Amino acid sequence: MVNYSTLETIDLFEYLCIRIKQIGIRSVHGVPGDFNLVFLDYVEKCGLRWVGNCNELNAGYAADGYARINGISALMTVMGVGELSALNAIAGSFAEFVPVIHVVAKPSLHAQKEELCLHHTLGDGDFTTFEEMSRRVSCLTASIDSPKTAPVLIDEAIRTCWVQSRPVTIFIASDMVRMPIARHLLSSRPPLNRTMPRDDVLQHGRLVDTVIHEVQQATNPVLLIGGYGILHGAKRELDQFLGSSELPVLAAASGLGLVDATLPHYVGLYVGSTSSPNVLELMHSVDLVISIGNIQTDLSTSGFSGNVDDTRLIDIQRTRAKVKGHNFTNIHINNVLIALTAELGNELPPVHSSSWVDRNQQQEPLAIILDKTDANTPIRRRSTEKSSRDQFLNFFRNSKGYFPALLSMGPWIPQHEFEGHKPITHDWFWTHLGKWLRKGDIILAEAGTASYGIWNTTFPPDAIFLAQYLWSSIGYTIGACQGAALAARDSCNPQRRTILFIGDGSLQCGCQELSTIIRHGLTPIIGYTVERLIHGEEQAYNDIQPWTHQLLPAAFGAAPGAYQTHRVETREDLQALWSQERFTDCSVLQFVELYIAQKDAPSNLVALSRSLRERNG
Amino acid sequence: MVNYSTLETIDLFEYLCIRIKQIGIRSVHGVPGDFNLVFLDYVEKCGLRWVGNCNELNAGYAADGYARINGISALMTVMGVGELSALNAIAGSFAEFVPVIHVVAKPSLHAQKEELCLHHTLGDGDFTTFEEMSRRVSCLTASIDSPKTAPVLIDEAIRTCWVQSRPVTIFIASDMVRMPIARHLLSSRPPLNRTMPRDDVLQHGRLVDTVIHEVQQATNPVLLIGGYGILHGAKRELDQFLGSSELPVLAAASGLGLVDATLPHYVGLYVGSTSSPNVLELMHSVDLVISIGNIQTDLSTSGFSGNVDDTRLIDIQRTRAKVKGHNFTNIHINNVLIALTAELGNELPPVHSSSWVDRNQQQEPLAIILDKTDANTPIRRRSTEKSSRDQFLNFFRNSKGYFPALLSMGPWIPQHEFEGHKPITHDWFWTHLGKWLRKGDIILAEAGTASYGIWNTTFPPDAIFLAQYLWSSIGYTIGACQGAALAARDSCNPQRRTILFIGDGSLQCGCQELSTIIRHGLTPIIGYTVERLIHGEEQAYNDIQPWTHQLLPAAFGAAPGAYQTHRVETREDLQALWSQERFTDCSVLQFVELYIAQKDAPSNLVALSRSLRERNG
Repeated sequence: MVNYSTLETIDLFEYLCIRIKQIGIRSVHGVPGDFNLVFLDYVEKCGLRWVGNCNELNAGYAADGYARINGISALMTVMGVGELSALNAIAGSFAEFVPVIHVVAKPSLHAQKEELCLHHTLGDGDFTTFEEMSRRVSCLTASIDSPKTAPVLIDEAIRTCWVQSRPVTIFIASDMVRMPIARHLLSSRPPLNRTMPRDDVLQHGRLVDTVIHEVQQATNPVLLIGGYGILHGAKRELDQFLGSSELPVLAAASGLGLVDATLPHYVGLYVGSTSSPNVLELMHSVDLVISIGNIQTDLSTSGFSGNVDDTRLIDIQRTRAKVKGHNFTNIHINNVLIALTAELGNELPPVHSSSWVDRNQQQEPLAIILDKTDANTPIRRRSTEKSSRDQFLNFFRNSKGYFPALLSMGPWIPQHEFEGHKPITHDWFWTHLGKWLRKGDIILAEAGTASYGIWNTTFPPDAIFLAQYLWSSIGYTIGACQGAALAARDSCNPQRRTILFIGDGSLQCGCQELSTIIRHGLTPIIGYTVERLIHGEEQAYNDIQPWTHQLLPAAFGAAPGAYQTHRVETREDLQALWSQERFTDCSVLQFVELYIAQKDAPSNLVALSRSLRERNG
Repeated sequence: MVNYSTLETIDLFEYLCIRIKQIGIRSVHGVPGDFNLVFLDYVEKCGLRWVGNCNELNAGYAADGYARINGISALMTVMGVGELSALNAIAGSFAEFVPVIHVVAKPSLHAQKEELCLHHTLGDGDFTTFEEMSRRVSCLTASIDSPKTAPVLIDEAIRTCWVQSRPVTIFIASDMVRMPIARHLLSSRPPLNRTMPRDDVLQHGRLVDTVIHEVQQATNPVLLIGGYGILHGAKRELDQFLGSSELPVLAAASGLGLVDATLPHYVGLYVGSTSSPNVLELMHSVDLVISIGNIQTDLSTSGFSGNVDDTRLIDIQRTRAKVKGHNFTNIHINNVLIALTAELGNELPPVHSSSWVDRNQQQEPLAIILDKTDANTPIRRRSTEKSSRDQFLNFFRNSKGYFPALLSMGPWIPQHEFEGHKPITHDWFWTHLGKWLRKGDIILAEAGTASYGIWNTTFPPDAIFLAQYLWSSIGYTIGACQGAALAARDSCNPQRRTILFIGDGSLQCGCQELSTIIRHGLTPIIGYTVERLIHGEEQAYNDIQPWTHQLLPAAFGAAPGAYQTHRVETREDLQALWSQERFTDCSVLQFVELYIAQKDAPSNLVALSRSLRERNG
């Protein structure tokens, strides 16, 4: 570690690394390559951990997972080969509003200017081709080609990543790395301010007024909470809004875990036609859905069944909103939530201790969370009662028996008694899982049986849930698990458990990242099952090579005492495992093979698969 | 298998699969996904093998490897997630002139038109984003959105892939798959014809005349042969040209194995300043370099040292050429080679039995090779002797003692006597390897120590060499090894051995494709070593997690008798292994861990690394 106060200038790449550290990133993901080796000298020098993933796609997934826990993350790759390998992960972060700062090493400006036929190019002297590809899945790309503009460009990239909650890509030529930057620039506040231009303030005001007007006009309004664009800088505001609001609350699939299931107004999970009867009944009666951070994808709406149309939808996204078809741009979800809390909420309840990393407890004060003065400004309660609406709310309040999903998301699946040696089925597994989960768990569900089955699981308080209901890239969660587990360890809450549910086919995509998990001594629980639905249940093309998974940790270099493997075939096996303290406490990596009948699947996935099959056919 | 003669129409995707089969592809690489499952029903129905890789990047690498052996290959992925994951591999095939037909499954036209928020999209209703990204690394993209235009678009895509020897991407909406296509269209010749428009014929004629003129004017001309754009449809023509020409022949790095080292005029490997002294001496004296299928990259010219400049360069590429700075486009290397053989060659020698898959021995007659009537037209010898040139050629012919590289590519590295228990060094290993290689071997060298060390290896006749001296994507060869081994088995020469040399860090990138190798019962020899040069020899960021590699085959499902692992620490160990018949005959998968001192590296890589370090610094 260097004492920067004694220096007049620092190197350009140091500036970037220190900025990265200032905004709360502790570990940087990526893979070394010819053009970024000089970069990497600075990472550890600046007190950051270099993760060193096995490949760039996994590194990108891991950076996504790290950002979902930490609030933001950084990824370093090399132009062309590395950059393109990570592109699927970056596109996923873009689709799912995950803020990742992607730093791409380019050859020297001299080589670019001379159009040299370097390796990692197409041999045509064009050094912009891949930049154009990255641009399509980044909310900003910045090319650092001068030390004079570098600090502004870097700060603006970080600010944009944070405001938009989406990836930015910073290209740095190898000969820029050591250029001098004035040290005093670092003493400015990290580039996370969000001063709104006057136009945006007006836009914001108009949106809030419109929303309040619509809510006042509505007879049966309901809140529908998703997870897109919330995690980074808006979670506390969401908690405050939900805690103060009296409207019924539904969680979208991406909002699982984000919405505290013990909230008095929480009803359950809305996922289209496969929702529980009480949720369907509620949605049938509502005339206004205030959707916050939700995207209505085919997978999260059970094939668009019960999609909420524009005529009764207020759709508030990270930086834009749509009220019954009318668009508002350049707003910010954070400000909107604060205003809505003030306008629609009751007296401010005690703020829920945030399930997110509380940055203020970290060693260095960070500026990611909106100024607390804004969030804590005493709010004025505004009377919005109307008679028919009262009726609706009273119906909701008095019908706990009819809305049994208040505390459990899936009670419409019969609660089996414990049945000894019976084989494990998906419906049994996911409904029983909730009993073993505990406060603060980080839970990852790979797209497939896990991401649908888990709709039947009751989440504990402060759980954080990672899944991709929009991008749905198979293999995402094994990399994301590494990133999430590392972010948890980097946080002020390092005892959080990280628990991954993945199919064996998905595990094959990115299995080597188990090696990175082992290398950094991370101790997630990884459970893997099988999947074979949608189309071609019997076709050979859906077969995968049967692996002896139990050998993987040792093959990837885990020491004998540093991991445990388990083979679980019956409900009794699983209950026994759940009762083992060493397993439950996550002191070492746990690797669990869950045997589930090949054609068994969660009921809701069977229904969804039918819908997809019909559309494919 | 279906008897197509009894049907009036076939389904659109059947048309594509049958065309793929007609051009000589037997196995299709890829990964199943939601939108392509309907595709995959047709693959096996049409008599093609579905490979089913572990992930799309590896599948792309494997398709590249398959194409380099088979002449052309096919890859099937899903829009977005799969397509982007494969993009680095496709970009590599584009850079390195490898013909891969990439078929991407898109959602139905209805879903696209309605701009539905489907999974595997960015959620913005735009279904063209990824197509624009793929377009930058494809020589043609085709969107199949009507059964009427489909046959023409498909045929044109296949033709372009073949003519350009680069990837094409065909996008097919899921609801197009079963559309009817007139069966009789299949009876037309597979779309590999290359009728030249009149303008191109003129261009071709002008190029050939110019080349002949330059060769006649030159005092000391030399041929420099690379491997870019040769493999597919031009190898036989190259063999005929080299066999009939009297000019000295140098191989570029990418031309290793492509040029028969027993040719009387073969001098050695030209790789810039790290070439052998005799080659450097020769290059110093030449006034004209006729470069065929070569790209002067930093890696293959030892950091541009001894780059041949325009003033003495004739550069003939797949579809364009440059003669001393003057450009010719829309030519084809195949036609040019035939014309040069006729104009510059001696009497046509007996055609070397092609080291490439001889398609005429396959079950179905294929049209990939240029019409034999063209290639075998009796050629007219043209006197090109000039006195000073005679002098040069005589000097060359009489100086075998001075050009000792005639039969060995690396005799400038001292030939050690066998030295018992001594540890293995790179320089020892690569110079001794040639003795154990045998005719027809397929040899893969991962970018790094292997791809440089192997410059010191004497290749056997008919060897095929796979490496990426331009794209240099780490991890490429493990996927490519699967594809190459499968292509060899699919060919008329299934007893060819496939031998991979890879560093352990590179192996980690794509290790799971060992599973696909095991699944299909392929039996390559895989040897892995370590690497750590260029920058940061001691830095932690260059560390990798130490694996227990010997467990990998079993972890990936290999049966006990289906593989052998070996740990080789000394020269004696290696000699013993090389003398084992079971090892040498490749009856099962062989997995060899080669222990080489961490900081040892091939001498030429040390020199190149120094050059790269200087440019990075």
